Amino acid sequence: MKLIRFGEAGKEKPGLLINDKRIDVSSIVADYNEAFFENNGIEKLQEAIKNSSSFPEVSDTVRLGSPVARPSKIICIGLNYVDHCEETGAVIPAEPIIFFKSTTSLCGPDDNLVIPKDSQKTDWEVELAFVVGKKASYVSEADAMNYVAGYCLLNDYSERAYQLERGGQWAKGKGSDTFAPLGPVLATPDEIADVNNLTMWLTVNGKKYQNSNTSNLIFKIPFLVHYLSQFMTLLPGDVISTGTPPGVGLGIKPEPVYVKAGDVIELGIEGLGTSKQLAVAYF
Amino acid sequence: MKLIRFGEAGKEKPGLLINDKRIDVSSIVADYNEAFFENNGIEKLQEAIKNSSSFPEVSDTVRLGSPVARPSKIICIGLNYVDHCEETGAVIPAEPIIFFKSTTSLCGPDDNLVIPKDSQKTDWEVELAFVVGKKASYVSEADAMNYVAGYCLLNDYSERAYQLERGGQWAKGKGSDTFAPLGPVLATPDEIADVNNLTMWLTVNGKKYQNSNTSNLIFKIPFLVHYLSQFMTLLPGDVISTGTPPGVGLGIKPEPVYVKAGDVIELGIEGLGTSKQLAVAYF
Repeated sequence: MKLIRFGEAGKEKPGLLINDKRIDVSSIVADYNEAFFENNGIEKLQEAIKNSSSFPEVSDTVRLGSPVARPSKIICIGLNYVDHCEETGAVIPAEPIIFFKSTTSLCGPDDNLVIPKDSQKTDWEVELAFVVGKKASYVSEADAMNYVAGYCLLNDYSERAYQLERGGQWAKGKGSDTFAPLGPVLATPDEIADVNNLTMWLTVNGKKYQNSNTSNLIFKIPFLVHYLSQFMTLLPGDVISTGTPPGVGLGIKPEPVYVKAGDVIELGIEGLGTSKQLAVAYF
Repeated sequence: MKLIRFGEAGKEKPGLLINDKRIDVSSIVADYNEAFFENNGIEKLQEAIKNSSSFPEVSDTVRLGSPVARPSKIICIGLNYVDHCEETGAVIPAEPIIFFKSTTSLCGPDDNLVIPKDSQKTDWEVELAFVVGKKASYVSEADAMNYVAGYCLLNDYSERAYQLERGGQWAKGKGSDTFAPLGPVLATPDEIADVNNLTMWLTVNGKKYQNSNTSNLIFKIPFLVHYLSQFMTLLPGDVISTGTPPGVGLGIKPEPVYVKAGDVIELGIEGLGTSKQLAVAYF
């Protein structure tokens, strides 16, 4: 299944994308939130929609929200692509680097990117994210895939001056509003033949900046579930983003390139759809 | 007012502490959560309890939970005490250092501290926390106190090996379950004569390790509200912890001292009450 949430920001309803047609399942599901995943919502939904023609269709012009409701946390992995390490000359990390994005940064896949007030260094990062399906604490790598509800496309927007030049931890540059457009869909694992072999790309104003494949991931999803669950309990609906490949604005030679108002950022991952953000100034 | 939440973990009800007597206000308030703070819950509650004798009393033996429901985020400030900087020889930061604690670390003030599996370096940090009362984005320092719902005592437990020796960001060592005992109370600002002059202390097995005063805070609450709201939107009910004074286990000479199973950690801040955690091994 491909789960979507549609409608006005903050008032999204749950739906599904079936053969490119959007249907409204709000008559049987309240929302794609912690309670939904915790109570085997995906299995129940699978059963309930065997006759999908009984659900109302939703127009393609309706806004899409994040395919999951606000989670307890968004955890991101840093420096997790072999080709990104090669590009920057960085040593491959011995263990995953982890940081949080503020959950208030979550938004719909095609919402405008609001460049923060006085920001000069807003940057992009196409990433493969996954959603936690069950409460996870001290999970073994062998058992980890039982804790994954599905996969999403994420743009992990980052303000590089806030992240790297303002003292201390990265949290400061990762959590501005609209810095986490997620979706269009949450694809359940059966939709994706091999999550470790998906092409991924990102363009700005039509120019390709990122172009890689999830096969370059250093720490893969089962290890990440295992690893993270040693440090904190993952809750159903939590979003974990696996890191970005090369081609972010910060790394461009001879001069970094950052997002400016009016830019159009488009990105995609094979099987997970595409998203598109128009950058606007804070007003 | 002094807000409390009481009852079994995960099923807490809202109450108040009035002249050391606990009362149950769950007949008029669902919970102390985002919706409560957003909808002027504190003002309405103040009005409703003018005759507090009409509310049931709660036994002193009932467990207390965190005085606020799970927030969208717990943000902490690093290295924010003058005397802590002096002790460690650190330069006073030019800007606040910020990091997140996983919200799954939140627990009641007197719940057991569960030492993570294989952890050797679990450490304590008495801190003054405050709770956000209104959605805050780009708030001026002059206006900031209008966004503060009240104050709490927090123990910002930290696993120093996870935080400092496992690569990258601090997030890894701050988010284990039970690492954020909050409370006993959320005290509204009218309860505290001067939040910048409160004694604070922490003992382990009766021995005093931390002993300071909030007057030593470098970045004070109005500045922190202003500062943080430049980087992300603060939501009603969010918990912000202002940092710890000297005397954490990591800094003890000649050898650091860490928590072991059986230890009893007690802490307090003037006007905000005390809390007490028994350290237990993960089982």
